[in-house]
Amino acid sequence: MIQLFATPLSGNAHKVRMALAFLDLSWDERPTDAAARQSDAFAALTPMRQIPVYVEGDLTLRDSQAILTYLAARHRPGDWGGRTPEERGEIALWLSHAANEIANGPAALRLARQFGATIAQDQAQAVAARFLPVIEAHLAQHRWLVGDRLTIADLAASPYLALAGEADIDLARWPAIGEWTDRIAALPGFPAMPGWPAQTAN
Amino acid sequence: MIQLFATPLSGNAHKVRMALAFLDLSWDERPTDAAARQSDAFAALTPMRQIPVYVEGDLTLRDSQAILTYLAARHRPGDWGGRTPEERGEIALWLSHAANEIANGPAALRLARQFGATIAQDQAQAVAARFLPVIEAHLAQHRWLVGDRLTIADLAASPYLALAGEADIDLARWPAIGEWTDRIAALPGFPAMPGWPAQTAN
Repeated sequence: MIQLFATPLSGNAHKVRMALAFLDLSWDERPTDAAARQSDAFAALTPMRQIPVYVEGDLTLRDSQAILTYLAARHRPGDWGGRTPEERGEIALWLSHAANEIANGPAALRLARQFGATIAQDQAQAVAARFLPVIEAHLAQHRWLVGDRLTIADLAASPYLALAGEADIDLARWPAIGEWTDRIAALPGFPAMPGWPAQTAN
Repeated sequence: MIQLFATPLSGNAHKVRMALAFLDLSWDERPTDAAARQSDAFAALTPMRQIPVYVEGDLTLRDSQAILTYLAARHRPGDWGGRTPEERGEIALWLSHAANEIANGPAALRLARQFGATIAQDQAQAVAARFLPVIEAHLAQHRWLVGDRLTIADLAASPYLALAGEADIDLARWPAIGEWTDRIAALPGFPAMPGWPAQTAN
């Protein structure tokens, strides 16, 4: 049985939740709030003390990008993780953006505004201001981040952009980003989360 | 012909340089200083205006983790990028750490100290303080980050840790990290860079 240590409002956890739902896998969600993350039991799962953590038999894996990469290789080999070396490279690019610019821009700003986290505000604003035009321009030309279909690049990059309104980022300025997160939310089996409802396909 | 837009002192560029050297590929290095990164020609290669950028025929790829992933898939399939789904996931974990904690901890501190960059010092110190014990503990138990051999996880994570002395991080506190970067620097064909000399295998 798959266990996912997560919280309902975590965009990082939602990346994994989307993958599991689209793969039609069942999982046991283990709610893991800030207090639980300080426990020795949780530290034994991950020295970073961050969610999500994915446990399946002998495998314990932290980091949402890493979990997506594992799930793609295991359940959608040669597709979700890239069909060619070029696609693999391009998907890795968006996983890097998810781990760095999105985490330290829109996601950090949301953490501060919604959850009161202390962050370097100016730096987070600067990261978001530099990155958002780049992904907006890409999505103005492409329906999906890589290739002509959903890949783990879309799963890794989308939650904190769909939730950017909660970070006081005006999504009306970034229409291609909004159309893309709506496109993902219209996929069959999309699991809604607070702030990111399912959409009707059009 | 492969072109690599880079600077001699960039640890991110050195990740790619190591991969190309270990693969015994030849490349044309295109020195790209801060002024050159402001040119329209460079912006046409990468909207992020960051090095390294890798160009090979029709492929233009930015981001050191992405370039490593491409090179692994193209030249060492099923090995450098992971032999199993579990290994692929674990390698992706260290690529995330390279894109986030290493970039925003040791690499940012080096940028500030060596090159006068303005960074959020307290945050960079905190990121480094949280991450270094995690990778030190892992390397105290493992000769390589994933599996029993060199993978792109090692190439992505090592340069800014080998250069951590230039960020005023005392490497004597992290002996397993130092032994691992020496191990990489002792591999046949290792390309030295300023601050990271080749080692004799022992």
